[in-house]
Formats: sequence, structure tokens, C-alpha cells
Amino acid sequence: MKRFVTKSLVTVLLLAGTAFGGFSATAPAAEDPLPSWNDTAPKQAIVAFVAKVTKQNSPDFVPFAERIAVFDNDGTLWSEQPMYFQAFFAFDRVKALASEHPEWKEKQPFKAVLENDMKALAATGEKGALDLLMTTHAGMTAEEFEKIVKEWLANARHPRFNRPFNDVIYQPMLELLSYLRGNGFKTFIVSGGGIEFMRPWTEKVYGIPPEQVIGSSIKTTFELREGRPVLVRLPEVNFIDDGPGKPMGIHSHIGRRPIAAFGNSDGDLQMLQYTAAGKGLRFCLYVHHTDAEREWAYDRRSPIGRLDKGLDEAQGKGWTVVDMSKDWKEIYPK
Amino acid sequence: MKRFVTKSLVTVLLLAGTAFGGFSATAPAAEDPLPSWNDTAPKQAIVAFVAKVTKQNSPDFVPFAERIAVFDNDGTLWSEQPMYFQAFFAFDRVKALASEHPEWKEKQPFKAVLENDMKALAATGEKGALDLLMTTHAGMTAEEFEKIVKEWLANARHPRFNRPFNDVIYQPMLELLSYLRGNGFKTFIVSGGGIEFMRPWTEKVYGIPPEQVIGSSIKTTFELREGRPVLVRLPEVNFIDDGPGKPMGIHSHIGRRPIAAFGNSDGDLQMLQYTAAGKGLRFCLYVHHTDAEREWAYDRRSPIGRLDKGLDEAQGKGWTVVDMSKDWKEIYPK
Repeated sequence: MKRFVTKSLVTVLLLAGTAFGGFSATAPAAEDPLPSWNDTAPKQAIVAFVAKVTKQNSPDFVPFAERIAVFDNDGTLWSEQPMYFQAFFAFDRVKALASEHPEWKEKQPFKAVLENDMKALAATGEKGALDLLMTTHAGMTAEEFEKIVKEWLANARHPRFNRPFNDVIYQPMLELLSYLRGNGFKTFIVSGGGIEFMRPWTEKVYGIPPEQVIGSSIKTTFELREGRPVLVRLPEVNFIDDGPGKPMGIHSHIGRRPIAAFGNSDGDLQMLQYTAAGKGLRFCLYVHHTDAEREWAYDRRSPIGRLDKGLDEAQGKGWTVVDMSKDWKEIYPK
Repeated sequence: MKRFVTKSLVTVLLLAGTAFGGFSATAPAAEDPLPSWNDTAPKQAIVAFVAKVTKQNSPDFVPFAERIAVFDNDGTLWSEQPMYFQAFFAFDRVKALASEHPEWKEKQPFKAVLENDMKALAATGEKGALDLLMTTHAGMTAEEFEKIVKEWLANARHPRFNRPFNDVIYQPMLELLSYLRGNGFKTFIVSGGGIEFMRPWTEKVYGIPPEQVIGSSIKTTFELREGRPVLVRLPEVNFIDDGPGKPMGIHSHIGRRPIAAFGNSDGDLQMLQYTAAGKGLRFCLYVHHTDAEREWAYDRRSPIGRLDKGLDEAQGKGWTVVDMSKDWKEIYPK
């Protein structure tokens, strides 16, 4: 798996996950299931696809059990700028733990985090990023980590919007998740983010239960502590759910090829290819970040969420591309 | 994970999975949801547990999303004698492939399989078993393997009962699965058997969809073959879902602690311990194979499905133990 670990700090931090909040996925308006979508091509394509696969006796009909839809998280269901939200979590953990580790004042990569010196942090490279990831994400039980994530999410605020990270999620995508489930789809997250960083909050925020969350993971071990069975998180990468890892993660967790896939970056390309290659009608959609005013605008040259090969392939294959500035009435929940 | 790989052939073969059939999990009779269970302690304990966790405003009430029940497969949902059914599959594959491999006539462990020489096979030890496993389970795409499993199951017959392996399943457990689902439970398989050996048939036979099947696995890789994305099965163990691997597999796939767990061997003990250690009411059950006439009788000294430590712990902790000969009216579907 090592070849999938890229060298940027944020990408490595992405290995461990994404953020929680109090927003519930609410049912869409009765008349229009997608009220935050403008009536442009993407909305029309979604509605047409759902109509075809749910219509009995149609050649495109798909039985309930096979209505699997997979969603990337960072940049597809919530924002990923100015850096992956899980990186904020890692930095905050270092700061929270610093008093127990006086040596960090002089030791990289911790020194750089404590001094907010992103240049020095970048200089520590992949090794620094992995150190940071493992120090902040391993060494505790699974239950302890869940509690840490929930507490962080209850207190942390996004620097640009000054609202909980769980609010920096896309209203149109919440409506889409609801709409698909209302049509018998089972919705899954398939994210490069940490699986245990997402599960504590995805059910409340997206209506997606933990067993439908697939992500990157570190290894765990089973122990009896004072007779009580616990799972302990080990500082060792288990699986990177990004790029070619996404179809592998889907195969491992779901065991069935999705009929619809939603992403926003080249890291989602193999997931979309894998989805598109199945028999029968398929739906692939890219969210294109084109809205610097309400969100961010980035694509082919962005170090975070780069969309380059994917954009070419989407155009070549006629996949749906959401132009965020034109196709979405709202970005975030009000 | 190596330490969990034991040395017996059948245990290693178990890594890759279990078998398919035409039997559908049918709804239980309207009046008695568990008609193949005698009205003895295990049935009473099951019904009492379900009543408590599903009763609104009861202190033991459990919301739908948390009603997770996990089932071992070999020896718990279907038989596992005279050897794990997946071992029959592996042997049959060697015989089917032998004409393409004339060298196998003189090469172990294949020679032993082709000559039905179990003693010589055992002498090849763990290395022989792994060779056999990887030769029969790896090297093809995931779709090709699914097809191979389905074809084998359509044609293979159990040597004692001369019926498809998918018929050598426990009628009382089919009723139990249905009964739990009817009460809002989500039922999962958590088996030492191969995940991709089970998924092609568990939905039809047990009503358990592929995404609710957890098992041992080999690694896969993502490839574009003539532009078409495929997953190729690699001859390398990925995960052993047995013993302490079971809670790890549950954590990885479900991300939520079950409230009920069902097994039959020491390999299920950690899964039951992990389930029992959660807060609130929990239910743990062991199937004890006591019926040599209708099925098989084995426990503390059996190389297959040994139930020794687990039996002691069940007695010590008051877990439910099914005495197959006394508690089950029927063993297999008629």
C-alpha cells in the first residue's frame, strides 16, 4: 500500500478521517426533493437516473438490494479547505497533549505544529506527517478515540466560517443522500479519511450509520484489560482508502459494485471507473469546486482535492459534473 | 496476523470461506417464530431477550440502529463436518484444474489431493495448506471467483447427506435470523471462512446481503484490463477473521459493538466476550454439537470447531448453550 501514500502532510493526515456536528440530514421538501439544486443539467440527470432504475418493468430497473450509492467525503459531502478537516484535528490534538510532552517544544514535527510553522512542518516530510498521525490517532482504545473525536468536534470551529466543522457540509448533498435513500438506495461513504474519525458523527450528520462508512485505517489489536475486552489502536497503517484503494475498500466492505458514485477529485477516479464499468445503467458525478465566493475554487493544480485526470475523463465519458457556482442554490445548511 | 494462522490444513483452508444453495430463508410461522426449537431454556432466553430490547420505555430498550447481531458461520449456521466445506471446494478445484497442471501429479500438496491421501496432505503442513489455498483462491478476478464458487455450489454434494452444501444448514438458525430481523435487528456473518467464498450465496440462503458478511480475506489489486477496471485476487493473506480477529473484523466492518452474538467454537470466544462487554443487556449463545445421530457430536477435543474454553466461559458467565440434540426439533430444512 505504500505507493499510495503521497508525500504531502495533509494527504497523510487524511488517512485518519474527517468531523462531527449537530446537524441532522432532514427530509427534503415534499414537492421538490432537491430544493438546493438549480434546475440545471446535474439535477435533471440525477432525477432521470433515479426514475429509470426505480421503475418496475423498465429495462433499467435495479432491485433494492443492488441500489448501492457511494460518496467520497472530503470535498464531496463537506469542504476540505484550507486543509483537510482531519488535519485540524491532528494539530489540535498535538496542542492539547503538549503539556504532557514538554520534549515536543524542541522535537519535530511537534515543534512546528506548536509554533504554527507550516513551512517547518512541510520540511519534516512524510516521516513527520506519519509521526503526527500516529501520535494523535493511535495508542488509545477505540472507545477512547471515539470520545476524543466527539469532544473535538463539539468544540472546534472552522477558521473561515467560524462554525462547527459539521456545519461546513453541503446542503445539496444532504438532500441528494435523502433523496436516494427515499428511493431505496443504501448510501455509503468511501473516503480517504480515517474510518474511525468519521463514524462517530456520520449517522447524525449524513444519516449514514457506521457500518456504511469505509475509510482509511490503522491496525488494531484485541486485548483483555482487567478482564474487559478492548480494541487498542496501533501506530501502523492498515489500509489507505484512496485512488485504487477505493474500489478495493468497496469490494472488501460492500462486496457488490455500486450503481452510483459521487466524488470530487482524482482520488475518486478509480471508484467512478469501477462503478461505471458495471453492467446496466450507472451514474457517476464529480463535484467541481468553482465557487471562490461561497466556498473555494480549485481543480487541476490544487494540492488538496486535485481534479485533473478525473475532469478529462468525466468530459470524455459524459459523466455529470456539478459546477458548484451555477448548479447549487445553497452551499451550506442555513 | 501470522500468530493466528494455526497449522492444521482445514483451519488454513477455512481462511478463504464457506457455500451456496437454493434454499431461501423463509418467514417463520405466524404463531411461533421459532417452530424448530423445542420449548426449552435457549428458546425461552432468546424470546425474553428480544422482548426486553424491543419494548419501548423499557430500561433494556435498544434503538433499531444498535440492534446488531453477529453469527459465526461454520458450525453455527451450517455444518462443518467431516471438514470445513471450504476445504471440499479447494480439493474439488485442484481436481478440476489438474488437467492444466500435469506437474501436480508429482508435486505436493496437489499430488496428495489428487490421490485423496489425507495423511500425505497433512504432512505438507502449513506451507502445503497455504499453497493449496492460494492456488485455488487467487489469480483470478473477483468476478471470476464468484462464478467459480457459484458453479461449484450448484454441482457439489455433501458426502454424508448427498445434498447440496447449501442444504446442510440449520433450520432453527434460519428461523432465528428471520425472527431477529423481524424485530429490527441487522444480522451479520462474522466467519473465519473466506469472505468471497460466502458472499455469492448468503443473501439467497440466509437473507444476509454481501455488505453484512465479514470473513477472512486475501489481498486484491485494482487493474485496468483493456480499459475495464477489475479487482484481481492476490496470493497473499490479508486478514484472518478468527479468534481475536473477530472483534477486529466487527470493529472494522460494523464500527459498532453487537448486542447479540452466536457461535459454536473457541474461535468465537473473543467475539462473544466483546459483545458481552458492552453496556446494557447482551445476549451470547453457543451451539453445542451434541447430536451424533442427526448431525455430529464434538466439543473439547475436536480439531474442527473445538469448544473447550468457550464452554467453560459460557457456563461461568451464564451464556446460553444450545444442546443440539435436546433443544432443536429439526436440524436441516426438509
